[in-house]
Amino acid sequence: MGAVVAEISMSVDGYVAGPDPGLEQGLGRNGEKLHEWAFASRAWNESHGRQGGEPSPVDDEVIEEMQAAGATVIGRRMYSGGNGPWDEDPNADGWWGDEPPFHHPVFVLTHHPREPREMEGGTTFTFVTDGIGSAVEQARAAAGELRVTIGGGASAIQQALAAGLVDELRINVAPVVLGDGTPLFQPLEAPIELEQTRVTHSPAVTHLSYRVSG
Amino acid sequence: MGAVVAEISMSVDGYVAGPDPGLEQGLGRNGEKLHEWAFASRAWNESHGRQGGEPSPVDDEVIEEMQAAGATVIGRRMYSGGNGPWDEDPNADGWWGDEPPFHHPVFVLTHHPREPREMEGGTTFTFVTDGIGSAVEQARAAAGELRVTIGGGASAIQQALAAGLVDELRINVAPVVLGDGTPLFQPLEAPIELEQTRVTHSPAVTHLSYRVSG
Repeated sequence: MGAVVAEISMSVDGYVAGPDPGLEQGLGRNGEKLHEWAFASRAWNESHGRQGGEPSPVDDEVIEEMQAAGATVIGRRMYSGGNGPWDEDPNADGWWGDEPPFHHPVFVLTHHPREPREMEGGTTFTFVTDGIGSAVEQARAAAGELRVTIGGGASAIQQALAAGLVDELRINVAPVVLGDGTPLFQPLEAPIELEQTRVTHSPAVTHLSYRVSG
Repeated sequence: MGAVVAEISMSVDGYVAGPDPGLEQGLGRNGEKLHEWAFASRAWNESHGRQGGEPSPVDDEVIEEMQAAGATVIGRRMYSGGNGPWDEDPNADGWWGDEPPFHHPVFVLTHHPREPREMEGGTTFTFVTDGIGSAVEQARAAAGELRVTIGGGASAIQQALAAGLVDELRINVAPVVLGDGTPLFQPLEAPIELEQTRVTHSPAVTHLSYRVSG
């Protein structure tokens, strides 16, 4: 089985979205600063069917590894973009367009059962109503030997960490202090032991990788 | 004038001390995990008059730069060790021993006026009751061309960031999720722009350096 990797971009002060998370497709005020390193990269632009992007081998490597996952788990707000019609209509579609950039099965944590959505380019959204453990189990089965990414938001990663489901934690630290917003971490009952396994950086971001135990 | 550098060790989840900050000389439960990289280093042991320490050039460089400051500003709890007699007796001494490791003037933020304490080895503790601006101004005057370190705790660094007094922010990210404790950051009114200027790491810690503006 592949590893389960929780991966997200975070500000230096620990936020994964700015204040007013309804703004900017769920990123909140100034939240786009968390993702500038990705938006500027060649690998991200290619995965979204676009030309361009700056050559940044370090950042490209991180994005390509994320894309090499066999399945992804995301939270409801990340699916719907945080704002938009989802909060009023649980069956409204997300904001990912006809061809989302995953190109593999995606399991969406939600309280609202609905049929899977098969998108162009290999992405299928499957809606999971029985919790993070079930979502990760389904994703591992779908991924086979490949890794599973838990791609956020904060709540999905917190649930997975608290349930001991995360093998590796990857945090892309963007050079900004947002001041307020959605924190990645909430208080936990016990400390989690980490082993620092890789640190890489471009001028725009530092990529921290940890093996999780305990 | 030298730069004003705020520098502190932090967990991946943003804490600079564990829960129950009265424990372990102010580090709180498991808080010693934040400083294991320093305790293990040659430079730290030498500065405390001890032999030993593992050779780790990256970590030694960070500690030697800190020691090369011309003056340091710290908060009251960092002076007193968080617990101890200070909270009952504002004139009680801290826990730094006869020869503290600073070897230069140290300005302690407090509400209790008292006379300076001249220690062995070049450290003088001066108690500043009129706020972070005054403490930094006095430290800059004492440091001359050398840098001023704002060495924590969280409150001193927050006050200095909010007052726009910090030129450079250095965070030593220790590989642990403490789960709870004293957060480095509190909500701020506006985001702070950072420029990532240096990233180094040993197996035990990642050292992040940012130029601060805005």
